[in-house]
Amino acid sequence: MEFDPTEHPHRRYNPLTNEWVLVSPHRAKRPWQGQVEKLDETVKPSYDENCFLCSGNTRINGEVNPAYTDTFVFTNDFAALKQDTPEFTQDDPLFRVATEQGESRVICFSPDHSKTLPQLSVDAITKVVQTWQQQTHELSQQYTWVQVFENKGAVMGCSNPHPHGQVWAQNQLPTLIQKKQTALTEYYQTQQSTLLEDYAARELDNQQRVVVSNDDWLVVVPYWAAWPFETLLLPRFSIQRMTDLTAEQQESLADILQQITIRYDNLFNCSFPYSMGWHGAPFDGEAHPEWTLHASFFPPLLRSATVRKFMVGYEMMAEAQRDLTAEQAAHRLRDAASVHYKSV
Amino acid sequence: MEFDPTEHPHRRYNPLTNEWVLVSPHRAKRPWQGQVEKLDETVKPSYDENCFLCSGNTRINGEVNPAYTDTFVFTNDFAALKQDTPEFTQDDPLFRVATEQGESRVICFSPDHSKTLPQLSVDAITKVVQTWQQQTHELSQQYTWVQVFENKGAVMGCSNPHPHGQVWAQNQLPTLIQKKQTALTEYYQTQQSTLLEDYAARELDNQQRVVVSNDDWLVVVPYWAAWPFETLLLPRFSIQRMTDLTAEQQESLADILQQITIRYDNLFNCSFPYSMGWHGAPFDGEAHPEWTLHASFFPPLLRSATVRKFMVGYEMMAEAQRDLTAEQAAHRLRDAASVHYKSV
Ligand SMILES: O=P(O)(O)O[C@H]1O[C@H](CO)[C@@H](O)[C@H](O)[C@H]1O
Ligand SMILES: O=P(O)(O)O[C@H]1O[C@H](CO)[C@@H](O)[C@H](O)[C@H]1O
Repeated sequence: MEFDPTEHPHRRYNPLTNEWVLVSPHRAKRPWQGQVEKLDETVKPSYDENCFLCSGNTRINGEVNPAYTDTFVFTNDFAALKQDTPEFTQDDPLFRVATEQGESRVICFSPDHSKTLPQLSVDAITKVVQTWQQQTHELSQQYTWVQVFENKGAVMGCSNPHPHGQVWAQNQLPTLIQKKQTALTEYYQTQQSTLLEDYAARELDNQQRVVVSNDDWLVVVPYWAAWPFETLLLPRFSIQRMTDLTAEQQESLADILQQITIRYDNLFNCSFPYSMGWHGAPFDGEAHPEWTLHASFFPPLLRSATVRKFMVGYEMMAEAQRDLTAEQAAHRLRDAASVHYKSV
Repeated sequence: MEFDPTEHPHRRYNPLTNEWVLVSPHRAKRPWQGQVEKLDETVKPSYDENCFLCSGNTRINGEVNPAYTDTFVFTNDFAALKQDTPEFTQDDPLFRVATEQGESRVICFSPDHSKTLPQLSVDAITKVVQTWQQQTHELSQQYTWVQVFENKGAVMGCSNPHPHGQVWAQNQLPTLIQKKQTALTEYYQTQQSTLLEDYAARELDNQQRVVVSNDDWLVVVPYWAAWPFETLLLPRFSIQRMTDLTAEQQESLADILQQITIRYDNLFNCSFPYSMGWHGAPFDGEAHPEWTLHASFFPPLLRSATVRKFMVGYEMMAEAQRDLTAEQAAHRLRDAASVHYKSV
């Protein structure tokens, strides 16, 4: 019998995290009798007087949002990180602790309450990219790590449908970044080249896992994807950090973001939930040639707009597990229409 | 200003996984406007003719369940691991893959469709423990790793309310186990003692994070807990594997399992969802003095029976984050009633 990745259980290795994922493609055939998500397809108004993020509204702490016209950034009223935390560390091997200083901000993507990223114009998305860049630049003056991310959809714990993301900044490298730092350094030292540049080149060559691309960027379902329709957004040029994007690259990035998020929405004809976020070299004064700026999308839906993958049980206790191959997922995303289902 | 763990954001280190968690206790104050879970409090019948797990019923593949009276084990009809997978490995650093052989079984805890672990008698739970032990023994003859776990509640992706768990067996060590193996070995080599034995002793001494205990076992909210009410079940004697439990230790384990799951249900007066699972030394022919048998409970609820913690956004992109301290969680669990709310 020969190995058939679409039939035989196998494990794939994530070289960025040093973790494996169990792929059990035959399991996609099992009937689903578990929890079904609520699908909120109520048409949202462009302005909602009860929304804390809409232009001109008053937030929970009494502050009034300006009459903003593209993006708008403010400090999270319930920030997980604060600037004035006193220093404290304890090195006991079983009870290790360190306080952390930082900031946490909310980034409104548009004044239009009813729209999400794939429904914005490339110009409007370029504004979002520029805001990510400005925020990263500003916060990197003071902090080593700046985490830009977006949480989309109620199923992802997003508590407000107004299009928005967040930026959290801090000095210590978070766990996942530390793992990537270790893996990227090791690869750079042993291979004398940059892991994600090598990877992008091979994926472009192979094409099986490529979903969309333009002259500057490509989006693949990574070989080691854990979430059913997980993707990795990679540059086709050398770049370490968000702050180094040229004006042209900002625009081509907006284009690729529009392309991938439209395909996501069109896969199951719904506003596709996900967490997405950006990783680049830390702001520690080093050059970091081992790093490549990249974004990840981690979307939970598996079979339809209402049936998700649960990373529980075996996954929490042992290892991430998926029910379709990365190649199958890429194929389906590639086949999704390139024009948003709500605009046709 | 002095460090106050109930006020100041800090990171705690998990010595079992080499990962950190961000603790932001002041964030518990933020109002929740996001997704609210459905609370399924319909009274379930003791027998459901449509349930695949009830005694005497026919499963999806046509097999008929026996008229079982305590526990019942069968091979998962949609197993993620299979025995007859052909061997294949590829060592390419960017496209590493290895096929895996294994088995995946379902363990019914009781013929009573309406009951969950905390509602079973200590005798009935002892039967469950014995079944875990027998299954582990049997599967360890052929496989290196045997993962016993339970997924409880629709919110945890459990697709059938009939009380049941699973056991998956395989030859390669899953990602989380490999992390623990590395950490336990390193500690054993540098400290000349067993990490979890040292940890249990210090928690017993300190008492702050202890939830329940008996002569043989203790349950703590670990110092590094990520999930709001996560707990760690530890032995108070030296033991590496589930298969080494004596008859007496099986019974005392059933007692502690009843104690902790009752407190869980009583915390928010609901059938408390969680994933729980067992870790012990691999079955690779080595002694593994660095290992201690232990179980973890990862429950998602945060504020009430319907408001959960979402590990998304920052958590997926950077690091787990929690909104109350381990000590606060332990305090609340300790204060929960010791008699099940449905039986009073
Ligand atoms: O096997 P079940 O209960 O149908 O499925 C559940 O547990 C499995 C093992 O933890 C997970 O892989 C699935 O995502 C989850 O829905
Ligand atoms: O900050 P929000 O959107 O209210 O909250 C959401 O995102 C946070 C950051 O990823 C998470 O910690 C929360 O669990 C989630 O509900």
